[in-house]
Amino acid sequence: MRAEMIAVGTELLLGQIVNTNAQYISEQCAGIGIDMYFQTVVGDNVERIRSALTIAASRADIIICCGGLGPTMDDVTRDALAEHVAAELVMDEPGLKKIEQYFASRNLPILESNRRQALTLKGADVLPNDTGMAVGTALKHEGKLYLLLPGPPRELTAMFSRYVIPWLRSQMSGVEPLYSKSLKFAGIGESALEHRLEDLIEAQSDPTIAPYAKEGEVMIRLTTRAATEAEAFAKMERVEEEIRKRVGAHLYAEEDVSLDEVVIKVLRERGLTLAAAESCTGGLFADMATSHPGSSEAFLGGIVSYTNAAKQSLLDVPNRLLEGPGAPGAVSPETAIAMAEGVRDRLGTTFGISFTGVAGPSTSEGKPVGLVYLGIAEQGKPTEVKELKLSGSREMIKLRAARSGYYEIWKRLQ
Amino acid sequence: MRAEMIAVGTELLLGQIVNTNAQYISEQCAGIGIDMYFQTVVGDNVERIRSALTIAASRADIIICCGGLGPTMDDVTRDALAEHVAAELVMDEPGLKKIEQYFASRNLPILESNRRQALTLKGADVLPNDTGMAVGTALKHEGKLYLLLPGPPRELTAMFSRYVIPWLRSQMSGVEPLYSKSLKFAGIGESALEHRLEDLIEAQSDPTIAPYAKEGEVMIRLTTRAATEAEAFAKMERVEEEIRKRVGAHLYAEEDVSLDEVVIKVLRERGLTLAAAESCTGGLFADMATSHPGSSEAFLGGIVSYTNAAKQSLLDVPNRLLEGPGAPGAVSPETAIAMAEGVRDRLGTTFGISFTGVAGPSTSEGKPVGLVYLGIAEQGKPTEVKELKLSGSREMIKLRAARSGYYEIWKRLQ
Repeated sequence: MRAEMIAVGTELLLGQIVNTNAQYISEQCAGIGIDMYFQTVVGDNVERIRSALTIAASRADIIICCGGLGPTMDDVTRDALAEHVAAELVMDEPGLKKIEQYFASRNLPILESNRRQALTLKGADVLPNDTGMAVGTALKHEGKLYLLLPGPPRELTAMFSRYVIPWLRSQMSGVEPLYSKSLKFAGIGESALEHRLEDLIEAQSDPTIAPYAKEGEVMIRLTTRAATEAEAFAKMERVEEEIRKRVGAHLYAEEDVSLDEVVIKVLRERGLTLAAAESCTGGLFADMATSHPGSSEAFLGGIVSYTNAAKQSLLDVPNRLLEGPGAPGAVSPETAIAMAEGVRDRLGTTFGISFTGVAGPSTSEGKPVGLVYLGIAEQGKPTEVKELKLSGSREMIKLRAARSGYYEIWKRLQ
Repeated sequence: MRAEMIAVGTELLLGQIVNTNAQYISEQCAGIGIDMYFQTVVGDNVERIRSALTIAASRADIIICCGGLGPTMDDVTRDALAEHVAAELVMDEPGLKKIEQYFASRNLPILESNRRQALTLKGADVLPNDTGMAVGTALKHEGKLYLLLPGPPRELTAMFSRYVIPWLRSQMSGVEPLYSKSLKFAGIGESALEHRLEDLIEAQSDPTIAPYAKEGEVMIRLTTRAATEAEAFAKMERVEEEIRKRVGAHLYAEEDVSLDEVVIKVLRERGLTLAAAESCTGGLFADMATSHPGSSEAFLGGIVSYTNAAKQSLLDVPNRLLEGPGAPGAVSPETAIAMAEGVRDRLGTTFGISFTGVAGPSTSEGKPVGLVYLGIAEQGKPTEVKELKLSGSREMIKLRAARSGYYEIWKRLQ
């Protein structure tokens, strides 16, 4: 089946934001065997959205609109689709109730524009929005499938994985569905991984083997068509075995989850605990740990010690390491060790991890941007320190350092 | 003048890469007063590119194609445009010479496909590629302007700023350029802001007033055409004054910067310092503070106290607040106050801020998801506490709580 995506939003046409939804939706469609032939971006204008819908309906079987379902006057995507298919707009009662409860629970006055976010099309299936207000709409009309989805990526991705994919699959009977499986790797770069799997990737036919790299994470996606999920997974098993033989030491998950999520989960399961002392990562490691529900059982706390004074008072780092002639300085293996041990002792955890380095953009203590020392203290074992030489922007160096921290803990847990 | 951009590349339709070129080109066009009405993405297929060109020519004056000028067989954008305008492909001699020299200097054999990268259209202006091989093409045909640009962002941006903008300006004499200005607001939601500016937005003509909301931030963009920047800003001044009268208390910047960046900047300028005690935000507030270069002058450190034990040992929160019959508990105004004062005292800062609440997905101490207490301790002033009722996912509650923290500090700095 052929799909076309229509992203609605004047901010896209002004270049104020990047159309990441196009990538997400295209990737998801490819994953279930839907071919995307065109993507269109149009502004918040009923006439132009209608014209884009007419063109899309002439060349695609599935038309996926996203954006323009908000409460403001320029959110007109649902009106344009209603005109295009000549259907009436109707209120989705569960969606409306949710919006009304939201405003009532906060003692906020509800406006008519807020209620509009529960509008859908007569005869359509409603897709609940678990992470926002605007309901989604899925409609079959004259042999074409139409989807209306919210624009904020958080809302779009939650709705897509929970409701859109099952709905699309249910409409695609007769076509052998496409199944895919993600393998996630840590501690190895994309080119190194690809190099070690080169002959497999080149000889691939069924299942296909596609490497992806995003923001420092490396993933391999296996994809195949089969009548059932069990059959698909059996086909993938053979290739997977060969991949494991070669790079299994770096394989940390068989689904698209982050390494921090896996680490927190394993720590919880084993009743182990972790604390972090962060200088250059500035709280990012803790923020990643605490983004997972239930993380408080494993991640007991952290200290962001940006200054030397904080390193001394909060982490008991001896002054002789930080200042004075011959002191190794804040960015040093010695300080990383003292920080990791300091936070482990203060919080009484199994593991203490520390980060001290130069996130940039300028050098510090004469040390280069990207140099980071990572300390790992563990109950009953000698404390270790790793020297990292990272590249990229300040944000990228923070992220890469934090990711390396999770990799070190993950290795300890194997 | 109306523009349409056509990005060519199957990798975009598979979701393998994000279409950052669309944002770049759109922003550049907006900056010189060209209105982008549509963006299209199409795969590496002559027929479909031709069809996209036909549609674009029916609704735009300027058609900007990018991608598909490489040496491989599936790079067919220039062939599609040649067919569309019925023009002959001709070799650009300077471009060809550059390619031949490149291969000769490296002793590499040159293939016919490499030479193709110097092809352009008969009668077109050639745009040199200073950072790559494929020449750009600029053509006027039946009153429409066509541009063929390379896809790699590095080549595209260099060619655009050096050659495309001057070429477009030379074709646009007589049109006044567009100027715009962003106003950023905090502590007010998008609908509430719009509601208070409703009549202004509805009556808008020149300058136009457009509200934007992204991830909890609210922005108003004013846009106008004028002969000079000074004239444009004078025109915007009248509208801005009226906006200030109504919602000026929430206006924190006259450019598109984040509130945390502004807060850190003002603290640094005034020599004031800040520390954070985070429970439910889990390090996110610190991470945001430390994402700005030079933040260490103002943000001295933070404590992520996820457990009651950590709140006691690291922040001196009295046990009687946390446990036992009649204790208000970890999520309470009393604990928020003790945490804010604790971190301020430990780090000796001007401000201490604290967050304790329920980020979800499940309730805690019988308290509902989204309930957050925010404490603000300031040298020489009584400590204050705010009760927040936030909605959304765990990530969203963390983000909204952290943003509210910056808003409270910002108010203190006014």
